[in-house]
Amino acid sequence: MISVLGVDVGGTKIAVGPVDRAGTQLAPPVVALSQTSDEESFLLGLEAVLRRALKEFERFEPGAIGLACAGTVDRARREVVSSPNLPLVSVALGPTLQEALGMPVVLENDGNAAVLGEALAGAAAGLRNVVLLTLGTGVGGGLFIDGKLYRGAHGGAGELGHTVVQMGGIPCRCGNRGCLEMYASGPALARYASSRARDPERDPNGTLIALRERGELNGGVVSKLAREGHPGAIEAVKQLADWLGIGLVNIANTFDPDMIVVGGGVGELGELLLRPAREFLRRTAMPPGSEEVQVAAAKLGNRAGLVGAALATWEVVEGTG
Amino acid sequence: MISVLGVDVGGTKIAVGPVDRAGTQLAPPVVALSQTSDEESFLLGLEAVLRRALKEFERFEPGAIGLACAGTVDRARREVVSSPNLPLVSVALGPTLQEALGMPVVLENDGNAAVLGEALAGAAAGLRNVVLLTLGTGVGGGLFIDGKLYRGAHGGAGELGHTVVQMGGIPCRCGNRGCLEMYASGPALARYASSRARDPERDPNGTLIALRERGELNGGVVSKLAREGHPGAIEAVKQLADWLGIGLVNIANTFDPDMIVVGGGVGELGELLLRPAREFLRRTAMPPGSEEVQVAAAKLGNRAGLVGAALATWEVVEGTG
Repeated sequence: MISVLGVDVGGTKIAVGPVDRAGTQLAPPVVALSQTSDEESFLLGLEAVLRRALKEFERFEPGAIGLACAGTVDRARREVVSSPNLPLVSVALGPTLQEALGMPVVLENDGNAAVLGEALAGAAAGLRNVVLLTLGTGVGGGLFIDGKLYRGAHGGAGELGHTVVQMGGIPCRCGNRGCLEMYASGPALARYASSRARDPERDPNGTLIALRERGELNGGVVSKLAREGHPGAIEAVKQLADWLGIGLVNIANTFDPDMIVVGGGVGELGELLLRPAREFLRRTAMPPGSEEVQVAAAKLGNRAGLVGAALATWEVVEGTG
Repeated sequence: MISVLGVDVGGTKIAVGPVDRAGTQLAPPVVALSQTSDEESFLLGLEAVLRRALKEFERFEPGAIGLACAGTVDRARREVVSSPNLPLVSVALGPTLQEALGMPVVLENDGNAAVLGEALAGAAAGLRNVVLLTLGTGVGGGLFIDGKLYRGAHGGAGELGHTVVQMGGIPCRCGNRGCLEMYASGPALARYASSRARDPERDPNGTLIALRERGELNGGVVSKLAREGHPGAIEAVKQLADWLGIGLVNIANTFDPDMIVVGGGVGELGELLLRPAREFLRRTAMPPGSEEVQVAAAKLGNRAGLVGAALATWEVVEGTG
């Protein structure tokens, strides 16, 4: 066994790649679109892409499979309990695939997998206490504490997007109000940009208005505009950075970690977003964390889930997890 | 060695008691007032009360001393770096006392000591993942993760009172705005009651006005009035419970612990405060934590620091900490 197949099981696509014990991805991934119309077609599609990958990566002698899934995962039963983007409710994905493919299959929550990837083989390699904050359509997190993944007493730890930063604030899909996800996600960035449309100084060529009218004003587009120097988009990023700063301070004052890694689609803004947020942290967090806690962009990008799921599986196979 | 002397080093008083390996306090504490005018008189006073306690508790054969201090503690150097209520800046309390008294002396932050006490010998005895939230003049915290005290990468973890729950909210003494401490502490409770003075329905006998005019409207008094059924004080406790609920949800969604223990002077309100806050948690936290995370009142009360400091010292002396 030279590799474990790491699998990022997303609502749009499934990516599978061989990963060695050190967390190195040995080849570009096999990618397929997810079939999410119903459970059966989803499972058939997933099994098909895994069979294809096992063949494609035969030379890397894969001996086990690790899947990263969004949602609530029961690790012991290797079951997806519920998922925001997969048509799975209480589906024992692990045992089913293990029987079909004849090798160990491990399930991990995607935030957990991602922090494991970044902490063992990414931006925080070699550090013992790492918190991952992912800014995308939602805001997620993962906790690596004292050299190990921390999943909580019931597998639900690390939901950093659903910590309240504004009592009585914007209603969140989780049922609460004022969650960080409502202020530091891609949709929030689009909202901040939208509020600057129709302002001739901030949207000189009407770009934001046009995008909004076409229904195309999203976090990714605003990020791109900000990098190109669009004034309204840059202001929107600064507004997002204020909220990210609050998120970072809360993490620093709670965990005092070695490093906070910021990932996700919005996180790809890099220093344009991180610099002002880090400055806010330095100014307002409690010492010694205010000076000591590092803030860095994720290094593995969208490969963090795939690599982390494989690393979690290596640990299970070797009995060290 | 049958006992370790646990010491709660407060700004008002110092309490010293013998604690066995199981966390049982073997006798009522020796208590003395703190001398906080300057460093020298503080140290002389502390040494004197420790000598008195060593004599008083001779029959329990104390073999080491553990001190719980508010503020930033450098455990390796056994030094108080800074403290909100003690006249100590970068004072190597551990080595100094160890030389004077001829036995090992260990220093621990008071929040850390308290969570260790509650997790090993208090409300959460036997549980592996425990978060302590103390509501007093300030709001503090302590983290017990995977069966061990978690102090953070630089000793600063657990500052839960300085997580932001209201972006741009009330300025906090830490330099930030909108910290939980500004909304869930004793002074916040007094503020909530004060805003109900002069309202004949909520303060029928003018009790709150009279207290406020005498400068005696504080969290302790409001707690007492609420327990006695005073309508304005009960409303103030409910307002505090809303904010405590936010604090509990943030802890549950972040840590998904076995139990959140609520201590401190305001925490002594017990179920009057905890019931509505727990209901808010059940309603708004993410599953499975929303159902599973227990919320309980601290059991050791103001002995948690003393007992926890002793337990931390037992671990050091035995080489298990």
